[in-house]
Amino acid sequence: MVVKLDTAPPRGMKDLLPPEVELRDRATAMILATYTRYGFRRIETPALENLRLLTGSGGGENEKLIYKVLKRGAKLDSVTTLREDDLADLGLRFDLTVPLARYYANNRATLPDPFKAIQIGPVWRADRPQKGRFRQFTQCDIDILGVASEIAEIELILATAEALIGLGVERPTIRLNDRRILAAIAEHCGFAADRQNDVFVTLDKLDKIGREGVERELRDDGHREAPITRLFTLFAPSGAPAASALDKLSGMVPEARPFVEGLRTIVLTVEREAAERYTIAFDPTLVRGMGYYTGPIFEAAYGDYGSSIAGGGRYDRLIGRLSGHDVPACGFSIGFERVVSILEEKVGTVGAERARVALLFDAEDDLPEVVAAAGALRGDDRVVSLTVKRKNLAKQLDDLAGEGFGSYAVFRAGVGEAEVKPLARRAPARGSGDA
Amino acid sequence: MVVKLDTAPPRGMKDLLPPEVELRDRATAMILATYTRYGFRRIETPALENLRLLTGSGGGENEKLIYKVLKRGAKLDSVTTLREDDLADLGLRFDLTVPLARYYANNRATLPDPFKAIQIGPVWRADRPQKGRFRQFTQCDIDILGVASEIAEIELILATAEALIGLGVERPTIRLNDRRILAAIAEHCGFAADRQNDVFVTLDKLDKIGREGVERELRDDGHREAPITRLFTLFAPSGAPAASALDKLSGMVPEARPFVEGLRTIVLTVEREAAERYTIAFDPTLVRGMGYYTGPIFEAAYGDYGSSIAGGGRYDRLIGRLSGHDVPACGFSIGFERVVSILEEKVGTVGAERARVALLFDAEDDLPEVVAAAGALRGDDRVVSLTVKRKNLAKQLDDLAGEGFGSYAVFRAGVGEAEVKPLARRAPARGSGDA
Repeated sequence: MVVKLDTAPPRGMKDLLPPEVELRDRATAMILATYTRYGFRRIETPALENLRLLTGSGGGENEKLIYKVLKRGAKLDSVTTLREDDLADLGLRFDLTVPLARYYANNRATLPDPFKAIQIGPVWRADRPQKGRFRQFTQCDIDILGVASEIAEIELILATAEALIGLGVERPTIRLNDRRILAAIAEHCGFAADRQNDVFVTLDKLDKIGREGVERELRDDGHREAPITRLFTLFAPSGAPAASALDKLSGMVPEARPFVEGLRTIVLTVEREAAERYTIAFDPTLVRGMGYYTGPIFEAAYGDYGSSIAGGGRYDRLIGRLSGHDVPACGFSIGFERVVSILEEKVGTVGAERARVALLFDAEDDLPEVVAAAGALRGDDRVVSLTVKRKNLAKQLDDLAGEGFGSYAVFRAGVGEAEVKPLARRAPARGSGDA
Repeated sequence: MVVKLDTAPPRGMKDLLPPEVELRDRATAMILATYTRYGFRRIETPALENLRLLTGSGGGENEKLIYKVLKRGAKLDSVTTLREDDLADLGLRFDLTVPLARYYANNRATLPDPFKAIQIGPVWRADRPQKGRFRQFTQCDIDILGVASEIAEIELILATAEALIGLGVERPTIRLNDRRILAAIAEHCGFAADRQNDVFVTLDKLDKIGREGVERELRDDGHREAPITRLFTLFAPSGAPAASALDKLSGMVPEARPFVEGLRTIVLTVEREAAERYTIAFDPTLVRGMGYYTGPIFEAAYGDYGSSIAGGGRYDRLIGRLSGHDVPACGFSIGFERVVSILEEKVGTVGAERARVALLFDAEDDLPEVVAAAGALRGDDRVVSLTVKRKNLAKQLDDLAGEGFGSYAVFRAGVGEAEVKPLARRAPARGSGDA
């Protein structure tokens, strides 16, 4: 007896149909071409990492979302408790930055200095599934390791903005802040030094709960009234030009000045290159979730698209945590699924292959001759797919057009090369491809 | 205190350096271009699958090597035993065929018929690590679903041979057999019907233990002497032309005739297309490990390279096991790491990027001007990477040449475009790239 199994992918994960993969492949090629021109080179790390690395990485909330892999064989046999940490020793990576830090520490002797890396690959988070968010998704990161100068942030922002625009993202906004400016603000307002991190976690919700919501939550958390009242008076109204927002903060929070100057260099350089194609803004309320950031942080946003489409920052102490020697490091990560879904809305899943030929033959035809005919057509650099002729040829041709074939040919024994005829265009069937 | 963590990747897994990724990317592009011309289209499935799917798939020995993912939250809390099956409900895929069968059953309504799929992606097996074998490795599969005719096997073999030759694999040999021929041979020899599978498992070791070894193991397993003696008399000496080997078997084992005729069609068609560039051989001792094969099986071998570099076959009942409806299906999988290591031996890790320019600047230079100069150079379609000038310029230029830069330019304030000069070539440092 056949027991019918559930054929859906695991909850929160996704099968990709051919037109989706083709769109993603074109986006990947576009991003890679841009990043390569800036001198970045692709690397890869395994999907699995030792759990000790992942849980000691400063990955913030994401560490709670790790898929852990069961120990095997004798290792599992010696486990006597049902504690997660005893049962598992490997985990699926939740981002590409923690593995990169390990990679750099492990391979430093053979890597260029500075090292400019591209990583494109899946990451996994056992998040609550929701619309547009998946438990396996692709990140697309560039990182510069070994450069303390702001030139690292500048190159990351320029290359990422260039890639986003190349993908058809119109006039993105890059928002910029610095973790040390956030700390200076908290100190200046008078928040308790040991509770700064909680303040940032609450401030990070500004987009969702608004100014009143943030102030209420800070009060509920037991912060004093004076710093709470002071906090929002330090922020320029959003939409202010970056340079004047930086001036304003510099005037009010002297502790922040050295870090404001760093951001000013980044802003001035990027603005000159942006030339109206994108905007760079200083946003002193920007927090970014990851615990490992130590300096400038940034994200890219696009039109009405709710959350950011790319995010990154400087993490000068992550590599030191692994190797014992700090290395200045900075990265920018594109949320690949978000960018692809913007693309999908704009262009639909238009296939790249327009010269696809279906070569129809009868089941009784001589196969060596059929194959030779297909080879001859393919020699002219066409995509040729062999298909057995069905009884209802008109219906079959209609189906083939819907599957993205632009033309067809019918094999006839002994005639030599088959004649290629165009197929009538029709609306593509869902999932089948080229318009 | 900083506790130094182990920075090696997990046991049996591998970090890929830039030149390795570049070589792999070129191999992937070559394979994809070939398969696309044959009308195959790329799909993707998640890395994780429900464990029930993976363990009920007929994946043979590989089912024992699955990385299982620990249940989470409430699901784990309700577990009271230390049994693997209770602790885990997801697993990392061990091949791309079982996920494809699930994918097809799940998405059939939106997929073309027949469906020709390309899959390139990592798979995981908790195998004993050994030289050249990894616990995460890449498979590169093509499959044709919905075609019962031998044209499916023929297209898979032609496209795979074409891709291998395109990758620089010289004169590969395709070895061919049929699971039903194996069964007919076992029956004809007089092996017990219920023990045929054990006979195949032993025969599969022929490469390693030789004829005497196989015969000894069959004896040790308690098979009778008559069938054992008979077995090897049915096989033509290896190296015989495929057609005559098929004739010989057909004469001796009448039960095998219908399946021999199918193979003859495949052999004749492929031989005509191969035109001396590769060889197709009938090998009645070929078994292939997977339990799900139902008809023709095949593999590609290359020169002295010990094991096969690609393998596949027909699996007409795998989709039915999931959906309740059998669908004829057939696939061919390239062992990507093996092909890449052949490539590496032949060409070394020669980088594709020869027009890489290092633009050197002083830390005190005006960054907006430096970045503008880099942008101007990049506009001519060069790869340009910014690098801070070091004190010992001669040493730095030598290092840059070793890192794969073909030329350099020194930024000078107010001069406009920097002059690009060639870098002296030198032997590439390990891991650093372009010769």
